[in-house]
Amino acid sequence: MDLSTILGIVSAFVLMIVAISQGGGVLLFINIPSFIIVIGGTFGATLVHYPFKDVFGTLAIAKKTVIHQEELPQTRIEQLVRFAGKARKEGILSLQVVMNEVSDAFFLKGLQMAVDGQEPGALKEMLEREIEYIQERHEKGADILVAMGTYAPALGMIGTLIGLVQMLQTMNDPSTIGPAMAVALLTTFYGAVIANIVCMPMAGKLKNRSQSEVLDKTLVAEGLKSIIAGENPRIIEQKLHAFVAPKQRQSNFSKKKG
Amino acid sequence: MDLSTILGIVSAFVLMIVAISQGGGVLLFINIPSFIIVIGGTFGATLVHYPFKDVFGTLAIAKKTVIHQEELPQTRIEQLVRFAGKARKEGILSLQVVMNEVSDAFFLKGLQMAVDGQEPGALKEMLEREIEYIQERHEKGADILVAMGTYAPALGMIGTLIGLVQMLQTMNDPSTIGPAMAVALLTTFYGAVIANIVCMPMAGKLKNRSQSEVLDKTLVAEGLKSIIAGENPRIIEQKLHAFVAPKQRQSNFSKKKG
Amino acid sequence: MDLSTILGIVSAFVLMIVAISQGGGVLLFINIPSFIIVIGGTFGATLVHYPFKDVFGTLAIAKKTVIHQEELPQTRIEQLVRFAGKARKEGILSLQVVMNEVSDAFFLKGLQMAVDGQEPGALKEMLEREIEYIQERHEKGADILVAMGTYAPALGMIGTLIGLVQMLQTMNDPSTIGPAMAVALLTTFYGAVIANIVCMPMAGKLKNRSQSEVLDKTLVAEGLKSIIAGENPRIIEQKLHAFVAPKQRQSNFSKKKG
Amino acid sequence: MDLSTILGIVSAFVLMIVAISQGGGVLLFINIPSFIIVIGGTFGATLVHYPFKDVFGTLAIAKKTVIHQEELPQTRIEQLVRFAGKARKEGILSLQVVMNEVSDAFFLKGLQMAVDGQEPGALKEMLEREIEYIQERHEKGADILVAMGTYAPALGMIGTLIGLVQMLQTMNDPSTIGPAMAVALLTTFYGAVIANIVCMPMAGKLKNRSQSEVLDKTLVAEGLKSIIAGENPRIIEQKLHAFVAPKQRQSNFSKKKG
Amino acid sequence: MDLSTILGIVSAFVLMIVAISQGGGVLLFINIPSFIIVIGGTFGATLVHYPFKDVFGTLAIAKKTVIHQEELPQTRIEQLVRFAGKARKEGILSLQVVMNEVSDAFFLKGLQMAVDGQEPGALKEMLEREIEYIQERHEKGADILVAMGTYAPALGMIGTLIGLVQMLQTMNDPSTIGPAMAVALLTTFYGAVIANIVCMPMAGKLKNRSQSEVLDKTLVAEGLKSIIAGENPRIIEQKLHAFVAPKQRQSNFSKKKG
Repeated sequence: MDLSTILGIVSAFVLMIVAISQGGGVLLFINIPSFIIVIGGTFGATLVHYPFKDVFGTLAIAKKTVIHQEELPQTRIEQLVRFAGKARKEGILSLQVVMNEVSDAFFLKGLQMAVDGQEPGALKEMLEREIEYIQERHEKGADILVAMGTYAPALGMIGTLIGLVQMLQTMNDPSTIGPAMAVALLTTFYGAVIANIVCMPMAGKLKNRSQSEVLDKTLVAEGLKSIIAGENPRIIEQKLHAFVAPKQRQSNFSKKKG
Repeated sequence: MDLSTILGIVSAFVLMIVAISQGGGVLLFINIPSFIIVIGGTFGATLVHYPFKDVFGTLAIAKKTVIHQEELPQTRIEQLVRFAGKARKEGILSLQVVMNEVSDAFFLKGLQMAVDGQEPGALKEMLEREIEYIQERHEKGADILVAMGTYAPALGMIGTLIGLVQMLQTMNDPSTIGPAMAVALLTTFYGAVIANIVCMPMAGKLKNRSQSEVLDKTLVAEGLKSIIAGENPRIIEQKLHAFVAPKQRQSNFSKKKG
Repeated sequence: MDLSTILGIVSAFVLMIVAISQGGGVLLFINIPSFIIVIGGTFGATLVHYPFKDVFGTLAIAKKTVIHQEELPQTRIEQLVRFAGKARKEGILSLQVVMNEVSDAFFLKGLQMAVDGQEPGALKEMLEREIEYIQERHEKGADILVAMGTYAPALGMIGTLIGLVQMLQTMNDPSTIGPAMAVALLTTFYGAVIANIVCMPMAGKLKNRSQSEVLDKTLVAEGLKSIIAGENPRIIEQKLHAFVAPKQRQSNFSKKKG
Repeated sequence: MDLSTILGIVSAFVLMIVAISQGGGVLLFINIPSFIIVIGGTFGATLVHYPFKDVFGTLAIAKKTVIHQEELPQTRIEQLVRFAGKARKEGILSLQVVMNEVSDAFFLKGLQMAVDGQEPGALKEMLEREIEYIQERHEKGADILVAMGTYAPALGMIGTLIGLVQMLQTMNDPSTIGPAMAVALLTTFYGAVIANIVCMPMAGKLKNRSQSEVLDKTLVAEGLKSIIAGENPRIIEQKLHAFVAPKQRQSNFSKKKG
Repeated sequence: MDLSTILGIVSAFVLMIVAISQGGGVLLFINIPSFIIVIGGTFGATLVHYPFKDVFGTLAIAKKTVIHQEELPQTRIEQLVRFAGKARKEGILSLQVVMNEVSDAFFLKGLQMAVDGQEPGALKEMLEREIEYIQERHEKGADILVAMGTYAPALGMIGTLIGLVQMLQTMNDPSTIGPAMAVALLTTFYGAVIANIVCMPMAGKLKNRSQSEVLDKTLVAEGLKSIIAGENPRIIEQKLHAFVAPKQRQSNFSKKKG
């Protein structure tokens, strides 16, 4: 559960609404046709850019910016080092038992391959390819949000141009110029808000998520390879610690060492 | 058949036309000379940038954003695993028979090479080089659309500058300023619409198509290499599944396994 | 001879001139001082950026966007496969005879090295390095045009700022504001035209030329390596076909094959 | 202690305040609601983009742009060459003694591994992976500042659009237009200042810091590998000098040499 | 001595001054406070971005855009081929004699290593790493100029915003609006000139210099490696010619060859 996504969006919108309501009515900033042209046009351009299933899939993925459970790297390392100790003492096949405490599908697949007697090199190659394709698929969600964040301001500008042309063609009464121009600017405003407060930051968070998921899976791939190769758990821990920040390096072993 | 391309463009244009007609006549937004300068100028700049045959080839390729048949990854994997089983039981030469059910030229070439007795390494190298060059050629279509999407707003701005200079030079009658400026802004409007609703999103879809085609061909290359190497179909399936999302992994084999 | 470059520039300019002449006199758009500040300033900035000989060399290279003879890939492949057959039947030294029908300096150098008895690996390495440096040199011309296409709009904006400051400082007579602003906008107009219709598209065409030249040289390097290695001409053809689009694959051999 | 960061920010702000106070009151440029909308909105967008702990961690990292102690490359090389001499004369285990004079955790870990009898290749691989991940973590701070420097001008523009719409909707009294527009422009001003004087340059300095830290760690990794391999200290010095500018190459050895 | 840098800057400034003086007084464009805010602010932001010594080092490096002596590639190749001949006839140690005619420190270091009996592979690896770090250091100067060229227009815009806010807050007398706005625009003008005529083009020239220096050093590294390996001078020449344009390939040997 990542509250920063919700808190960030809510606080930015609250600030804008407060600023708006201080300077006059909030109603001045609500214009349904302007809203439809920006949202609908952005959605249309995005559908030209990506197939249906990818666009609607993004809505599901966008949930991930709020709800997600993340395995902490130190927990994962601790788990891998424990499994390494078990495998060393009781043999690779003993890992069959620990598969119950693993819920991650990728880790399970790797353990299954280890138990099935795969070579360390072959296992690592297959897991690394899987990581590569996981990353590619995960970043598609971020890419779609970036595309929406690019089309939204463009559609905002198109909406403003429509409003300006209409205003300029029919400006008989000078008193209508101001309000007409105000309405014309609303689409630019909507486009900027959608892009800079919703789409672009959410795309950024999805990319961050993908990175930490790739780190987790890299730890698993690297750890399993070392486990199959029968390396010393202490050495495995040292290797895996290289992937994380010093303060996340909690050793399973006492620190007294020659 | 990809309806999202058509639906996206149509819905975006319908929204704009509705927004325009609500605020006055649609005719205000139709100006043939403005349209010619943006479209013609964009086309001219694109011809300077790319040779004739590439520019006109793009029109043919642009069809691909709507009409295309895509082999689903799971179908392709199922097919490759089936062929692997056949080749293992009846020998590589038995693949001659299955060539009738393959329509993809790339797959056929690979099968022919397999039947001709190519080495796994040589076959994979040749197919991978072919994939690389396929990708390069396919992305040229997307690049041309990106170029058009870059020149269109620039030509729109050039058209607006022409209109502004003319208006400013001859503004004796203040009542003509508004309409003259409205007409001057139309080229910017056309340029923004062409770029953001047509060219850029279509370029994006072509790049997506290229990606999924490359995935399909990579599965074929990887699968054929494993088939020639005489690998176990179950292992081949496991390898190929690494390329696709977990929900696309439908095993040919029963899932009961030690 | 590439007519698309000329046709593109001419058609874009004709369209602009027609649009301009419809809306008033073409003379309104001709202002020698404005033109000098954009062209001269762009040239000045380019001279700061690149040494003399590179800037003037670009003028020579720019010719290449119009006049150039390109070896079609299929012709080159046909030639290489023919040489491969000759070398296989009559020995590598027989290639001495065919050097008369080759005009490309790179191909000649490669043939000479082959006749001199170079190893396939050494020959390919040397030719590939040469390709790399050819590419680097060729893209310098494109880079200079991109630089000019970046400085031109900047100088256009600088010119407009000069005009605006002068107009704002001396606006006693309101009737002079319009024409003064029109003149100020001309430099922006010139900058946009130079960048988007001349420099950027021509830079793009030079890059395309470089790509197809690199493809040609890659075919030569790959083909010669295979010829020296004494590979079967049929296999060589198959290898080289991987570099080109399927419709450019015209086999030298009859297509009847098991 | 890096005074240039403080001096740069202070001097830029002093210049602006002087320029502002010359042209009127500084108070004209202080508008709390405008300030809140830019700062708060930027912070909100950044929280959507990055998780809490990363955003607040940046504040800690930003200190590094001012306070930091850097090991000079020449000092580090001198130290490594000295250790190499000791290890050569008295054996690798003698390095245990010198660990007291090393404070850098990365160097200590490397020395410990050397004393523990790691292979040169394995040690270098582990240290290089650690360098890679150190770099990734360090650049996250810079990335967050870049994100803030991107959102700040966008929020500035959003604030200005809000002000413009309010002004245009209610412009009954022409005398209020000027001040209202002045206030509307303040958010754009705040956004530009935050981005271009604070966020972007500080992100740049963090990237520079990361680079020089990576150089230091690369020297350590390269040096330790050579020490374990038992190379001649003179050769090690020559190797390490390749990483630094000629004027930083102070030899430990007399320069008289055949 | 590279006159194009000076000539480019001088001609661009002369053109601007002529254009300005034709349209009124040059004094209109001189405003010390505006100048100080752009120059001082740009310098401040650059100091936040880079440490003192790098910023002031850039001033020294900027000289290189004008004064520099460049070794022509063909001269360098001729020299290397000559040394190769000498080394082949009289042994590697005979290169000690020719070290007097070499002034480049990098070349000298390489020769010293050759005479000291380094392996070809080790020598090339060390020289290549040195080239890599030379390039990194050299491009820092260009990067700083690019940063200045990015901050200057931003500071120009900030200055203009300050001027606009002041003008809008106090526009009681309409006759002062024009001149006040003219002054406000001057900072944008200064920013654009500094960026597009000074900083960006000079950064480009520094990058060019770095490239040709890297080419020179690459020729030396490649040539020395071949000399130590005892290769035929004729083959060495052929190898080195691959790095340069055909018209720079002047053979040391007569061209009559089978």
